[in-house]
Amino acid sequence: MTKPVPQSDFRTPEVTTGPLPSSRKVYVGGDIHPDIRVPIREIDLHPTANEPPVPVYDPTGPYTDPGVAIDVEKGLARFRTAWVKERGSVVEYDGRLVTPEDNGGATGKHLAREFPVRHRPLRASSFETPSSKAPQDEAFSSLHPEGATQSRVSKGEGRRAPVTQLEFARAGVITKEMEYIAIRENLGRKAMLDGAEATIAQGESFGAAIPPFITPEFVRDEVARGRAVIPANINHAELEPMIIGRNFLVKINANIGNSAVASSVEEEVDKMVWATRWGADTVMDLSTGRNIHNTREWIIRNASVPIGTVPIYQALEKVGGVAEDLSWEVYRDTLIEQCEQGVDYFTVHAGVRLPYIHLTADRVTGIVSRGGSIMAKWCLAHHRESFLYTNFPEICEIMRAYDVTFSLGDGLRPGSVADANDRAQFAELETLGELTKVAWDHGVQVMIEGPGHVPMHKIKANMDKQLSVCGEAPFYTLGPLTTDIAPGYDHITSGIGAAMIGWYGTAMLCYVTPKEHLGLPDRDDVKVGVVTYKLAAHAADLAKGHPAAQIRDDALSRARFEFRWEDQFNLSLDPETARDFHDQTLPKEAHKVAHFCSMCGPKFCSMKITAEVREYAAGMSDNEKKDLERATKEAEAGMVEMSEKFKEEGGKLYLER
Amino acid sequence: MTKPVPQSDFRTPEVTTGPLPSSRKVYVGGDIHPDIRVPIREIDLHPTANEPPVPVYDPTGPYTDPGVAIDVEKGLARFRTAWVKERGSVVEYDGRLVTPEDNGGATGKHLAREFPVRHRPLRASSFETPSSKAPQDEAFSSLHPEGATQSRVSKGEGRRAPVTQLEFARAGVITKEMEYIAIRENLGRKAMLDGAEATIAQGESFGAAIPPFITPEFVRDEVARGRAVIPANINHAELEPMIIGRNFLVKINANIGNSAVASSVEEEVDKMVWATRWGADTVMDLSTGRNIHNTREWIIRNASVPIGTVPIYQALEKVGGVAEDLSWEVYRDTLIEQCEQGVDYFTVHAGVRLPYIHLTADRVTGIVSRGGSIMAKWCLAHHRESFLYTNFPEICEIMRAYDVTFSLGDGLRPGSVADANDRAQFAELETLGELTKVAWDHGVQVMIEGPGHVPMHKIKANMDKQLSVCGEAPFYTLGPLTTDIAPGYDHITSGIGAAMIGWYGTAMLCYVTPKEHLGLPDRDDVKVGVVTYKLAAHAADLAKGHPAAQIRDDALSRARFEFRWEDQFNLSLDPETARDFHDQTLPKEAHKVAHFCSMCGPKFCSMKITAEVREYAAGMSDNEKKDLERATKEAEAGMVEMSEKFKEEGGKLYLER
Repeated sequence: MTKPVPQSDFRTPEVTTGPLPSSRKVYVGGDIHPDIRVPIREIDLHPTANEPPVPVYDPTGPYTDPGVAIDVEKGLARFRTAWVKERGSVVEYDGRLVTPEDNGGATGKHLAREFPVRHRPLRASSFETPSSKAPQDEAFSSLHPEGATQSRVSKGEGRRAPVTQLEFARAGVITKEMEYIAIRENLGRKAMLDGAEATIAQGESFGAAIPPFITPEFVRDEVARGRAVIPANINHAELEPMIIGRNFLVKINANIGNSAVASSVEEEVDKMVWATRWGADTVMDLSTGRNIHNTREWIIRNASVPIGTVPIYQALEKVGGVAEDLSWEVYRDTLIEQCEQGVDYFTVHAGVRLPYIHLTADRVTGIVSRGGSIMAKWCLAHHRESFLYTNFPEICEIMRAYDVTFSLGDGLRPGSVADANDRAQFAELETLGELTKVAWDHGVQVMIEGPGHVPMHKIKANMDKQLSVCGEAPFYTLGPLTTDIAPGYDHITSGIGAAMIGWYGTAMLCYVTPKEHLGLPDRDDVKVGVVTYKLAAHAADLAKGHPAAQIRDDALSRARFEFRWEDQFNLSLDPETARDFHDQTLPKEAHKVAHFCSMCGPKFCSMKITAEVREYAAGMSDNEKKDLERATKEAEAGMVEMSEKFKEEGGKLYLER
Repeated sequence: MTKPVPQSDFRTPEVTTGPLPSSRKVYVGGDIHPDIRVPIREIDLHPTANEPPVPVYDPTGPYTDPGVAIDVEKGLARFRTAWVKERGSVVEYDGRLVTPEDNGGATGKHLAREFPVRHRPLRASSFETPSSKAPQDEAFSSLHPEGATQSRVSKGEGRRAPVTQLEFARAGVITKEMEYIAIRENLGRKAMLDGAEATIAQGESFGAAIPPFITPEFVRDEVARGRAVIPANINHAELEPMIIGRNFLVKINANIGNSAVASSVEEEVDKMVWATRWGADTVMDLSTGRNIHNTREWIIRNASVPIGTVPIYQALEKVGGVAEDLSWEVYRDTLIEQCEQGVDYFTVHAGVRLPYIHLTADRVTGIVSRGGSIMAKWCLAHHRESFLYTNFPEICEIMRAYDVTFSLGDGLRPGSVADANDRAQFAELETLGELTKVAWDHGVQVMIEGPGHVPMHKIKANMDKQLSVCGEAPFYTLGPLTTDIAPGYDHITSGIGAAMIGWYGTAMLCYVTPKEHLGLPDRDDVKVGVVTYKLAAHAADLAKGHPAAQIRDDALSRARFEFRWEDQFNLSLDPETARDFHDQTLPKEAHKVAHFCSMCGPKFCSMKITAEVREYAAGMSDNEKKDLERATKEAEAGMVEMSEKFKEEGGKLYLER
């Protein structure tokens, strides 16, 4: 018999800290808000490069700052509490009591240790606790402008003090979060606009409105019109603000979370920090099974990026995993629990409506979204419209009180290329568009989740339809996977679709790891997933023409060309892997300065030869250049007479040099 | 001191044999040519699936046929010699003497063992050995229709008996190779057209002309008009014919080859077989350094797929690695050496013309093609037009005599996204278009190589320009890489570009491995590169609308949906990895039939819930279906009045069931 482990034996989660190779973290202050400190990672190059450090967008949080003492038992510094409080319109209160059900009834050795510090939550002072009786059917009509509740809200909004970033933006207020974001997103653009490299990249942005320079006012305006969201629960005080929107850099999300069959709190906290280290802009905690509350608390208190969840997962645990037993009350209670903890965005599958469910019957893979299938099962069991749909206005009111952002879930997304762009998928998307407007009416920020499995020729239609029916609310897609035949490589089948849909306009890409469809991602899978999506998002930024996106590519390419191996490693998304791959063939330190590589060997080097071309071109006189240019044009024309002529003249030209 | 290893100590290369999981190889005979035996891999599904085996295009050669005894010392069966001889127009002759220079002067323990069997080569009986004096400058004019040599050829072609597949196609002859290919490419289409699943996929093919069914006559016609090539040297008798063209399945190439600093003959033969096992349609041997002749002989004699090379690499070795010392004579000698061995296609960088070289001077990464930089160096050193360009007609005549296909090299391809689609790149492409027509005039098959590093928004312009200036000759691209910032992940940065350009019309994708830019790929890298490109090519086939492409996706998706884990593994591109990833979380055999997976656990399964949706939908009466459809339409319309109405009526409907 194994001895039960007492609670105090739970390890303190170990996380990876320290700067990335050759990188320093610098902080930039604001003009409007001088006290904000925006982190930027600068990669220093070898002195021989004679180039300035390369600035890189930095979602890694305080973990990569050697000047910050990390204590996972205490959590990160809660600097945003002051920001929220000084804006007013919130109150601190005792908060909901944590019950054993919140942790799936785990006890004894099975109960994960509580996070050691407890903070009293904030919420909008205007928030009214609704009556305990669920207004389920009554609330349904309130979805719509004619409805009673909505009218109250519409009338009320003018009177209510703003709480959400959307409400502040509409009121013309540039919050600290907004200026913080403007500085983050501007990375490299200022230097470029001021300096010699003042070429704005020419991309194809499919109707996006990417400005040369991002002002705090631009951030405010994008949030006000709903085209961008700042997921930032007022109780997630540890958060470094970031933005998700089509006119900003493409972001990526990493999913973590334990399940009933695998993983632990310690692993999940480590994975969260690990994911941000490699570039995750947000992290979703998709935990199921026991310890769901405590796991989430450890994660949020140590997260510098927005944390998203799917509350229906925990609600289902609370009713013993039986979908039919779900109720609005349990769900509502779960929302408040997670709002108080500081979750920044909720996936809500309110578009899985009763009359859509039968549309999935003839699919190859039916309903593959967990949340979608839970709600489908509930609707069928009760023969009623989804309680997420009928209670949507109250969901909005709760989320508004904490500034939690909607991520309207695509519960009917296709699970195979065969089911892509079908009626079920697009019917749900129409409803998400309807709900977007309701949420906006309530002052709540919204993004829309998208598929899934979509062959390449059907991807753009998804983006176009989302833009048109959801009023340009940010799209947040999972991949999409462009073929179903490569389990084990679905980070790649989906990375292809992700890069494309990111280019077309998706604002955030939800990563897929190599373990997709096969198992839970471990630490290595998380890293591969993050790096794959980071490169896909960056490919999209380049193609969209983000003004400064190419700075890092060019710096790395110059390093490659000049055999600055260390710079090439350090500028890459994954310096460890790049260095390791190089060293497998040429392990010695001396080779790091070698002017050749293992592919071609020392005599056979194209880059060396190119250096000679440059010397040759640089050595030409103006007349020679003119003659050469003529010869070149003739050669381009591909005409023999001209070529012959060039041969006579050109031959002489070169011999006379 | 280590003891010198005598020649006989060289190991026999070990290669991987045996069928892939749950797969059988079946052979299909021809109608026109009953003696051909076209291999198709059939994947058997679990009996509970009640589905026919899934046919898969099979480039794995005899290695996966347990009925074939593999002896690497003897090479594969040379069945094509009879095909070539019975068509006439060829003669057997003694062939060129192999010299020590052919193996880089390697001796003693450094000399790789000769392949044990020697075959006398064939060549066109019409082939005239040119005078030993190089007609370098004189030949230049012959590039063009007015030129003397070309006129001779044009006049001659009518009289000359056909040797190349192009010449046979023009003469209206359906060769055995052509019927073989029609059967291969038709895979699954016949069953689909005959059977219940007679839906032709609707893709977007950007003006390609993909037929519902591929007849031998269609193959002939595509070859005749130059829109497809069959790389099949008459001396590569071991070859299983395949086709490269925009209206056929997208193919992939794997590069192997040793360098001066790494690898051995044994490793390269193993890698070649290994690459085809995972789906490589052709293999390029890019060896440099010593033992280049013997390495290639071992590879070709054991290769069932076309082998490509870049002859300038070996020519450079023959002149001690000094580019300036290259000459037409050395190059010509190398061509004949490799033609006699049976190389199926040659990369020839004849578009790197003297007047284009200076166009690369201002690039971020200059010239990155090895062949391109060698030729640039030669041109600069001699101040002369490239001898590949001036002697192009004679190159054509040599390649015609053995039916070697051109892969016109893009020596000025961009090596960074900064250099994409620049003047140097497109000037060379124009010249490749000019040379395509010259090669066609000589009866030689042609494909065109493409970049490289190209951001997404510039990819389509490459395809469009290639189609317009090269007369629809097949495009064969390396990636392209869509960003430069992810060394270690360049199979993915390039897999994105490859899938896209494959969709737009590229006929063959040259793989990139994770080691790109960092080191020589090992066995694992080769596999990852091949599988990545296989999935990219397949994603392109789906998007182009290849009629039967989706059969495998759908079969795998059904297996996934029905928890047939073994079928899911077996249908995937890499069953080993899929199974391994699954077993990392749920290792027990019992879990292979479990109706859940490690992501969600037993209670939380969306696929299980979907099964219930189907039962529900199946149980409805016709009237209920009609009412439901009306309710669905109303919900899609998103209007509250209608929804309210549905709630009243629909509620009753369901309660009455």
